[in-house]
Amino acid sequence: MPDALATFLATNRGRFLEELETFLRIPSISTDPERRPDIERAAQFVASSLRDAGLEHAEVIATDKHPLVYADWLHAPGKPTLLCYGHYDVQPPDPLEAWLSPPFEPVVRDGNLYARGAADDKGQMYMHIKAVEALRAVHGTLPLNLKFLVEGEEEIGGASITRYVAANPDRLRADAALVSDTALYADGMPTLCVGLRGLIYLEVEATGPARDLHSGLYGGAAPNPVFGLIELLSKVKDAQGVIRLPGIYDDVEAPAPAEKASWEALPFDEAEFLRAEVGSLKLTGEPGYSVLERIWARPAFEVHGIAGGFTGAGAKTVIPAVATAKVSFRLVPKQDPAKVVASFRQFVADHTPDGIQMHVRELSGSPAVLVDTDHPSIRLAASAFAEVFGRPTVFIRDGASVPIVGDFAAHLGIPSVMMGFGLPDDGLHSPNEKFRLENYYLGIATVARFLERYGQSA
Amino acid sequence: MPDALATFLATNRGRFLEELETFLRIPSISTDPERRPDIERAAQFVASSLRDAGLEHAEVIATDKHPLVYADWLHAPGKPTLLCYGHYDVQPPDPLEAWLSPPFEPVVRDGNLYARGAADDKGQMYMHIKAVEALRAVHGTLPLNLKFLVEGEEEIGGASITRYVAANPDRLRADAALVSDTALYADGMPTLCVGLRGLIYLEVEATGPARDLHSGLYGGAAPNPVFGLIELLSKVKDAQGVIRLPGIYDDVEAPAPAEKASWEALPFDEAEFLRAEVGSLKLTGEPGYSVLERIWARPAFEVHGIAGGFTGAGAKTVIPAVATAKVSFRLVPKQDPAKVVASFRQFVADHTPDGIQMHVRELSGSPAVLVDTDHPSIRLAASAFAEVFGRPTVFIRDGASVPIVGDFAAHLGIPSVMMGFGLPDDGLHSPNEKFRLENYYLGIATVARFLERYGQSA
Repeated sequence: MPDALATFLATNRGRFLEELETFLRIPSISTDPERRPDIERAAQFVASSLRDAGLEHAEVIATDKHPLVYADWLHAPGKPTLLCYGHYDVQPPDPLEAWLSPPFEPVVRDGNLYARGAADDKGQMYMHIKAVEALRAVHGTLPLNLKFLVEGEEEIGGASITRYVAANPDRLRADAALVSDTALYADGMPTLCVGLRGLIYLEVEATGPARDLHSGLYGGAAPNPVFGLIELLSKVKDAQGVIRLPGIYDDVEAPAPAEKASWEALPFDEAEFLRAEVGSLKLTGEPGYSVLERIWARPAFEVHGIAGGFTGAGAKTVIPAVATAKVSFRLVPKQDPAKVVASFRQFVADHTPDGIQMHVRELSGSPAVLVDTDHPSIRLAASAFAEVFGRPTVFIRDGASVPIVGDFAAHLGIPSVMMGFGLPDDGLHSPNEKFRLENYYLGIATVARFLERYGQSA
Repeated sequence: MPDALATFLATNRGRFLEELETFLRIPSISTDPERRPDIERAAQFVASSLRDAGLEHAEVIATDKHPLVYADWLHAPGKPTLLCYGHYDVQPPDPLEAWLSPPFEPVVRDGNLYARGAADDKGQMYMHIKAVEALRAVHGTLPLNLKFLVEGEEEIGGASITRYVAANPDRLRADAALVSDTALYADGMPTLCVGLRGLIYLEVEATGPARDLHSGLYGGAAPNPVFGLIELLSKVKDAQGVIRLPGIYDDVEAPAPAEKASWEALPFDEAEFLRAEVGSLKLTGEPGYSVLERIWARPAFEVHGIAGGFTGAGAKTVIPAVATAKVSFRLVPKQDPAKVVASFRQFVADHTPDGIQMHVRELSGSPAVLVDTDHPSIRLAASAFAEVFGRPTVFIRDGASVPIVGDFAAHLGIPSVMMGFGLPDDGLHSPNEKFRLENYYLGIATVARFLERYGQSA
């Protein structure tokens, strides 16, 4: 049997790549209202791929924003049910001029498939579908019950799927979820992610004068919203990255000593991380914590964007009437998003400069997640992973947030197997995003093996 | 004679307005490279208007950037020579959506002429030309020698005219200059401006990671250039507006007690200034100084614009690779621009956050100016002004900079009569810039009277 699967996978590599490239050509940027038709095309593409793989009841479900795609196959009584999740939406590709090839014209260079969404998350989501197709082709049936739920708003907060999961626990009932939206710790190293940071994304708008003012005539007497925003945001964290919101660290739990020890054993090369991934003069962050602790187990405040006043070519001597910033807090387990948002609102109220008005808008929020490594789905995923890759699986966390994992835990009471095949330098959210082609194929094989093992476990 | 002049001016009001409207329809935005053909058209318009008014040797002079326009009339031996200055370039009109009528389609509403450049400076510069035309029409000759020098780079630093003045002191030799690029202190109140703040305009670029990073994967360990810029700029001045550059106040001279007393006698209404002009919750600025002192006689630091990261609709969790800000220092008499720039560069070097690189670019710089109120040109301008307006002329300063006034002082050794007819709420550099139509006509009359008086003085 293993040989038949391996043979099928080897024989179909070319087609698997072509199909994924077709998917990647759809610019399904969820934050861009003009891409709405592409969002619809991407949803239809997913539904039709699920049908082709042998799943039933494939359905594009309208929501308040972007559609969900659902499908299932429930003909394995007594076997576990696995809920496979992915997202078909992608981040905006800007800055466009930094791409070596157009973001929505996938191309293979040096064994990597370059395109927006190649790794995050179209390529990884498509692996699930191809694994199902392969199992059916080889076995004529499937080893366990499957449900698929794929969304189009992951990059913009995922409000619709959160509501859908909360409202449809019976339809989605399962024993575990499978989520491939994370990365291998290093190429060739089977990796399960068992912890995620949460995220609160906010917009802060500062207003001052009723209109843009000439800075010569008013500079020294009129409040400046750009500077007001600068003053405020400069106080949210200190130069070392320590967040100054009162109480922000009260609920932060340190990782267990065993988990911390296992991180220290990972082949993490700080100099290489700096050189190959970050590319700045040096790393920064809270003193007293390792880099992995800082990005996996410590909260972080970031300003993602700021805009105000004149920023074109040349000089304009203006005191602008308005300035805005996009900011976020990354959260760790036990931190309550609502509490942090309330604390930030209070901080803004307490530190708004004279003459300025601040308006805070919450764009999205989700708590952090920790998964129990003793759950059967996690154990069997780890062993399938180790079999395909030929070495033991490591358990890590991820500093990014996968809000759906929190929703599955909260509303369905199930853990998520976070089995990702990306690499740390894939450039998610950056220009020249890529997915290592070999990992796409290994991913399909690993998911297929995991489905077999999980089906045999009951 | 006075009656003949007044009659001519009254009879020609309609034509004077139409001609100015034609001038205002040319979108001669000096900072926008795409407007280069409009810059050329505006220069040609000025040259041809000067010729029509009876001036000679009208010439459009090519420079490294935007052309200058020169003309003269030198047939009054023994009489003083006045150098009339103005600029035909304008600020960008953005934000366009805030204009009630298109910025380059002048329209009269409620006695005001609305258009970009109506007051700053096309309308005011055109008054000089119409005053000359009127005097020639009425007297058949001119009462003194005149030179005109009009530039197209005032809004972007005026580098070309600065070079031209420095290189051509003989051609431009004069006894005084006439500059109408300031405002009346209040409507109906004849006002001469005898002090201007200087300006240093700078761009600061912050860089960090080699590319945009996913903030989930790197937040807490990677330096963020947007936050780095925020940290740096927040330190340049404190919450009350006091600038923190070491030594910045060392050369600042307080206004003479008499000048300060005269400012206190001006009908300045702080509540009205706040309500009608600034429109913010309250005024801000250095404690211990009146509003007029703060904007006329104290240095000020402003951030005019800031840009970095994702600022579109929705959410993008990015740590951007680069962020930029446009900033300026307003300078007062005795402050040396070069010294302040050096101090700022040192401050940036001293306060650049870890992991960030800052690059400072100086876009323009000019010192502050104080004019001697005992000079004949100033005395006669004050009396002409008082005659036309029917009340005594007040002496004020202006917080904005008119770099050419410093150039005339430095290279030609002459004072500038800063006789402006704008109003404080004209919205220079803002949407819905306007010029009170009555003041356009009064301005033509006042300039004509001043030329007569100055000619009779010798």
